[in-house]
Amino acid sequence: MDLSHYFSTFERRDWQRIEEGRVRLALVGLGGFARERALPAIRRSTFCEATVLVSGSPETADDLAREFDVEHVLGYDEFEDGTASDAYDGVYVATPPNHHEAYACAAADLGKHVLCEKPLAAEPSAAERMVEHCANAGVVLMTAYRLRTEPAIRRTRELIADGVIGKPLQIHGGFSVTLLEDVGPDTWRLDPEVAGGGALIDLGIYPLNTVRFLLDADPITVMAETHTEGPPFDRVDEHVAVQLTFPNGVTASCTASFDAHPDSRLRILGSDGQVLLTEPFGGDVSQRILVEHGNTQTRYTGSPVDEVREEFDYFAHTVLAAVEDGPDGSDGLTDMRTIAAAYESAETGNRIEL
Amino acid sequence: MDLSHYFSTFERRDWQRIEEGRVRLALVGLGGFARERALPAIRRSTFCEATVLVSGSPETADDLAREFDVEHVLGYDEFEDGTASDAYDGVYVATPPNHHEAYACAAADLGKHVLCEKPLAAEPSAAERMVEHCANAGVVLMTAYRLRTEPAIRRTRELIADGVIGKPLQIHGGFSVTLLEDVGPDTWRLDPEVAGGGALIDLGIYPLNTVRFLLDADPITVMAETHTEGPPFDRVDEHVAVQLTFPNGVTASCTASFDAHPDSRLRILGSDGQVLLTEPFGGDVSQRILVEHGNTQTRYTGSPVDEVREEFDYFAHTVLAAVEDGPDGSDGLTDMRTIAAAYESAETGNRIEL
Repeated sequence: MDLSHYFSTFERRDWQRIEEGRVRLALVGLGGFARERALPAIRRSTFCEATVLVSGSPETADDLAREFDVEHVLGYDEFEDGTASDAYDGVYVATPPNHHEAYACAAADLGKHVLCEKPLAAEPSAAERMVEHCANAGVVLMTAYRLRTEPAIRRTRELIADGVIGKPLQIHGGFSVTLLEDVGPDTWRLDPEVAGGGALIDLGIYPLNTVRFLLDADPITVMAETHTEGPPFDRVDEHVAVQLTFPNGVTASCTASFDAHPDSRLRILGSDGQVLLTEPFGGDVSQRILVEHGNTQTRYTGSPVDEVREEFDYFAHTVLAAVEDGPDGSDGLTDMRTIAAAYESAETGNRIEL
Repeated sequence: MDLSHYFSTFERRDWQRIEEGRVRLALVGLGGFARERALPAIRRSTFCEATVLVSGSPETADDLAREFDVEHVLGYDEFEDGTASDAYDGVYVATPPNHHEAYACAAADLGKHVLCEKPLAAEPSAAERMVEHCANAGVVLMTAYRLRTEPAIRRTRELIADGVIGKPLQIHGGFSVTLLEDVGPDTWRLDPEVAGGGALIDLGIYPLNTVRFLLDADPITVMAETHTEGPPFDRVDEHVAVQLTFPNGVTASCTASFDAHPDSRLRILGSDGQVLLTEPFGGDVSQRILVEHGNTQTRYTGSPVDEVREEFDYFAHTVLAAVEDGPDGSDGLTDMRTIAAAYESAETGNRIEL
């Protein structure tokens, strides 16, 4: 089986329908990811421009505005009041999850399109309101699943859909970080009121959403186990293991950890082959893909692609070309409901139907 | 961290206490594994000799007896009657699982030590009786978990015990074969009355037992999902996914399949590193081990070791040296109980306490 066409134009934007256009963005929340990944990615993007920064730290925002040549700096109250709303067409909500609803809905009320970080909210009910609110306002709501625009994931999805590994059967995924080394113990990720949970909602959401995308299917049952060793992880799941079933008996065995050797990987076993992705979830995807088909192994080892730039262009393209095939609000909501059910399973010991 | 001492004398028999001795074996059941793996392994062993073949197919047995220079050939009835019992010291029971109890207990009644293939029986109650019967007879009962004598597994166990990967946290294991291509549809493995189940008891038992050995711990809960696509797998689990918890919150996410792309792998993620074993369960272990510790990766890629020869010598050594640290009957029984609980979980949707 010749796999060269999957890999020969690996970075192709199969989703791109238009060549020109520009979406002006307000960035709401200037945490590490927004500063270090989003702003540089927007600067290198095809369809985006950062025109407004919204922050509770005016000094940080002013420095960034100078560095990235951004016109406006606002406080959160000013943003919600509609200040400078003529200066942007869409917002990127990158606050902690419990604030997503307020800023996404404020943006929708101003007629602005919304790209909202994952998880979509800290709880399913808030995500439901966001979906409804944005639909009523007639604006795009996209959940910022950057893996969805990652070429390694898109090419893998194509070859699965084309039957290269036969029928998908069993999936293993894992994502682990050393949270205390990465950001220290003083992080909202350890407050379940703010984050909506722990390792599952912050990290486990990557394999959960990616598996759904790769299979083009939603899980029908979930079982889960959570564990914490104690402070500073005592209010959240430090470690989690989740087992999902999908239609046709496909299973996905996923783990996530805030406090383990850093690693991420995904394996999709099928009836006639398998795909192994190394480090798919960490933000800088190494593009190491191993495809087995029968007795043949094909490895792709290309250069990393800036998936954050891809994500912002995908969002802007969705707005400009009026196409709706991306990870919308209801996609983010499906993960919220799955995660809530997983926490319920961990609590009760029951398999939960979705 | 210097890992060279784990790999420099990779094949060392850390369990060997004596240099001489011989255990004469009766092989009960002459299926493919006994013919193609066990008899050649015994011929190359240090402590074993095949002196009796027990079979329902005298012609096959006579041919094998000539090829491997085995003195006696018996039918099952003759074996149970004690014919030629002076000619052997121990038996290797390699019949389908539902016959293990009868032949193991007959051997014990003759004062013979027993090496019994896994699963120990087709159901936990039979395994319980076997354990009790052999204990009362004062003979060794060892479950034939050949991975337990496999150097790749023993070295991995040592480096985990020494803290090379820190605290073990999350384990992923999988084992899949193409049963219909390997042995065809006319196999006792598809009859749950004979086999005790399907992919879980035949294949999943490898990661289950190996994980217990690597962690030196037993699972405390199990959740499972089984699935079949229909005939010829309609009476058994064609595919299975199992999620176990161990003490201290360690989880193991294991899958097995009778009808998928052939693969086996095991990953043990710890707080400070991880170990990845490629193809650990397939019988010819490739000895590809990747150990990650912090930012260092160490790969071992040695030649395969005949784990079946190691297993037979280990059994004979247990008899000769009167040491009891191997996979005894109660070890096999623990897996039987875990597997029964996993089937119960798949049936009821509940997490089962062990």
